[in-house]
Amino acid sequence: MSLSSSQTVPSPTGMPLSSSVSPKVVIGMIGLGTVGSGVFKIFRDQPEIFFQKIAVKDASKTRTIDDLDLDLLSQDPHAVVSDPETQVIVELMGGAELAKDLVVAAIQNGKHVVTANKELIAKHGPELFELARQHNVRILFEGAVAGGIPIIMPLKLSLGANRIEEIAGILNGTTNYILTKMTQEGWSFEQALQEAQAKGFAEADPTNDVEGFDVGYKISVLSLIAFKQVVDPLAIHREGITHITAEDIENARELGYVIKLIGLAKMTDDGRLDIRVHPMLIPNHHPLSNVQNEFNAIFVKGDAVGDVMFYGRGAGEMPTASAVAADILAIATGLLKGNEPIPSMIIDPAIPAKLQPVGETVNKYYLRLNTKDKPKVIGHLGNACGDAGVSLESVMQKGINPDGTASIVLLTQAVREDQMNQALSAIREQESTSDIGCLLRVL
Amino acid sequence: MSLSSSQTVPSPTGMPLSSSVSPKVVIGMIGLGTVGSGVFKIFRDQPEIFFQKIAVKDASKTRTIDDLDLDLLSQDPHAVVSDPETQVIVELMGGAELAKDLVVAAIQNGKHVVTANKELIAKHGPELFELARQHNVRILFEGAVAGGIPIIMPLKLSLGANRIEEIAGILNGTTNYILTKMTQEGWSFEQALQEAQAKGFAEADPTNDVEGFDVGYKISVLSLIAFKQVVDPLAIHREGITHITAEDIENARELGYVIKLIGLAKMTDDGRLDIRVHPMLIPNHHPLSNVQNEFNAIFVKGDAVGDVMFYGRGAGEMPTASAVAADILAIATGLLKGNEPIPSMIIDPAIPAKLQPVGETVNKYYLRLNTKDKPKVIGHLGNACGDAGVSLESVMQKGINPDGTASIVLLTQAVREDQMNQALSAIREQESTSDIGCLLRVL
Repeated sequence: MSLSSSQTVPSPTGMPLSSSVSPKVVIGMIGLGTVGSGVFKIFRDQPEIFFQKIAVKDASKTRTIDDLDLDLLSQDPHAVVSDPETQVIVELMGGAELAKDLVVAAIQNGKHVVTANKELIAKHGPELFELARQHNVRILFEGAVAGGIPIIMPLKLSLGANRIEEIAGILNGTTNYILTKMTQEGWSFEQALQEAQAKGFAEADPTNDVEGFDVGYKISVLSLIAFKQVVDPLAIHREGITHITAEDIENARELGYVIKLIGLAKMTDDGRLDIRVHPMLIPNHHPLSNVQNEFNAIFVKGDAVGDVMFYGRGAGEMPTASAVAADILAIATGLLKGNEPIPSMIIDPAIPAKLQPVGETVNKYYLRLNTKDKPKVIGHLGNACGDAGVSLESVMQKGINPDGTASIVLLTQAVREDQMNQALSAIREQESTSDIGCLLRVL
Repeated sequence: MSLSSSQTVPSPTGMPLSSSVSPKVVIGMIGLGTVGSGVFKIFRDQPEIFFQKIAVKDASKTRTIDDLDLDLLSQDPHAVVSDPETQVIVELMGGAELAKDLVVAAIQNGKHVVTANKELIAKHGPELFELARQHNVRILFEGAVAGGIPIIMPLKLSLGANRIEEIAGILNGTTNYILTKMTQEGWSFEQALQEAQAKGFAEADPTNDVEGFDVGYKISVLSLIAFKQVVDPLAIHREGITHITAEDIENARELGYVIKLIGLAKMTDDGRLDIRVHPMLIPNHHPLSNVQNEFNAIFVKGDAVGDVMFYGRGAGEMPTASAVAADILAIATGLLKGNEPIPSMIIDPAIPAKLQPVGETVNKYYLRLNTKDKPKVIGHLGNACGDAGVSLESVMQKGINPDGTASIVLLTQAVREDQMNQALSAIREQESTSDIGCLLRVL
């Protein structure tokens, strides 16, 4: 891809500048960390993409970029977003609050915005889209979800004639790496987490990843695009992966499944949004089951297209920079041609989601529990499930634990979650039950 | 997705029509077969997309569309492409020659074109793109490759900042269905083909699919987009799947591979195009290995994004209609807004490909052969390979055939194909060789 150099550049107001100015699009960037450095490397030899200023926290810090012109750096992001010659602001600082103030200022100053900030879009997307509409500028955010995987643009354009029915994504590389290692090596969660931390895939405090907060932001951004539903990411039902044991992984394998942390979103028949983040058993024949290590994938069901899946690296310097650079090119190409700066499908405005309570969702369940009094146990479990209207697909006795209890695994048929919870309460109160090990849903 | 109805429609010349005209985009369609019917169903209740005329071979034929207004049908496709009010021609008739004449006429008449015709784009794409550029209209063809899977637009836009390094695709649903059944059921090629024909996945004459012609068209279209390389689809090195046996599938499984028909394209370091269609052994951990039945997938390596994969249904009424409809929406949205009608990245012109001869490619090989004189065989094979500079990764004796010969499987290390052919000639001439069963490359 190279940009043509035979056109003049319109200024931010849309009026072409003098044709004596060489054709270029003027960029101001906020943040020069991992992704920002990648974006800079992609465009540094492209004369059409001109970096005017890059806002950084500490201009004296050593950078990984060769021969970086230090005059490019500024410690004043507010000055960067108000520079009169800058046409596009690339926000790569992260966090929701200062980033929001800067993006609002950029839009009010008539600048297009490219961001990879999932938290910003999840929390303030609709408000920013409306502001951008009023100021006739674009805000693009392909890098905010699943790094380099093309998903936002394909959902908006390529699947634009579909009613999207369901999205199920492996959206966090850290947890997928941990679950992959637990599966391949038989490790415990703690062992796999340590390995991930040693390799730089997990942070010292892994809460944001392993408790599913990161996936919550991403699935709420995808719901905004696919369903036009605005959802507070903190209102999403969310379960992490810390309670999953090597035993659960092995049980799932024997049953023909792998365990993955899934961000799930679908519309119910009555127009509510079923959106959740939790680990699930994925059948071995499902394309999500083969997504290994730090890779991500998003499985989408559309009414016309059927099942599609997008797979790739969900993070990292160059993959995420690839997505940010695509957004910059989409805007720049339009500006260089003097046209609307991007593929701008006219999108229905987003509306606040009515969430379906997770108790009303219907799922198949995997339940592992430890029991005493082995001979009567299967009958007791069957009764507790039957009384709650839960039908069982299989019951497996998995052997005797060191403490003398027996490990039992149930797989249910599809049932409402509140019925399953009712069965679970009854099982928990049974004399023969020692403790509940793990309850997981099945995709 | 709904289109806004607050704008006037520019005519094909770009001038807005009177604002008293309700905003719509006027479509002429050529072909009302499977895909055409799907496109019609998607838009029939969308007032913004207005079908002016649909050219069919036989207007009296019974159609699957409820309440079809027969006045819409015309048996004169030339009249449809020259209708003065029509803004977009949707070509779904197939074949390269008449379709080309009609698309040329449509472009010369100032109409945008959407097509799902892989043969047309593979054979005449560059010429049509240049004509469209001269007439300032767009030609879009998302449906031409891999049905509903978004791949053309993502390659052009979402991966636009990448230098694409390699494309490897499962691009034909019929052969993937056959190979999947051979793998899962242990069937012969002939059994699996019969089943595919019975299910409507394979035609009575399956040559176009099983000999790889269909994949040849598709990989040449992808090369045009990804590498800007124009290649005659009939010049592509092409091998089908008819010689693969249940034994080869089982041998591959034991070695940790599945066999898939792959369309492959990559640029060599000296700027030549390595493009081929042939079956390959795919390692079980590779995401392409889990693409089952009639599904398609395209694996793309980009210099920034790394590995990405796009997965979905490669054919069928609604999946392909989904892709065609996305192209129509992309053009219509622009027209309704009075702007450039699509996301139009400025693309380097395509150039005629210099093909790398397949003899110069470097691959790992799987070789199955039948031998006499068992005791000395391994030594003979080792000598033949060693003399040609072919290193062996493994040699497996697979048991004795009913005719008393022994089935032997070799897996080589990566080696130039002409060296492999030299080893193969030597093996074929050896006294101990009965016959060569199957030679396959490894991804």
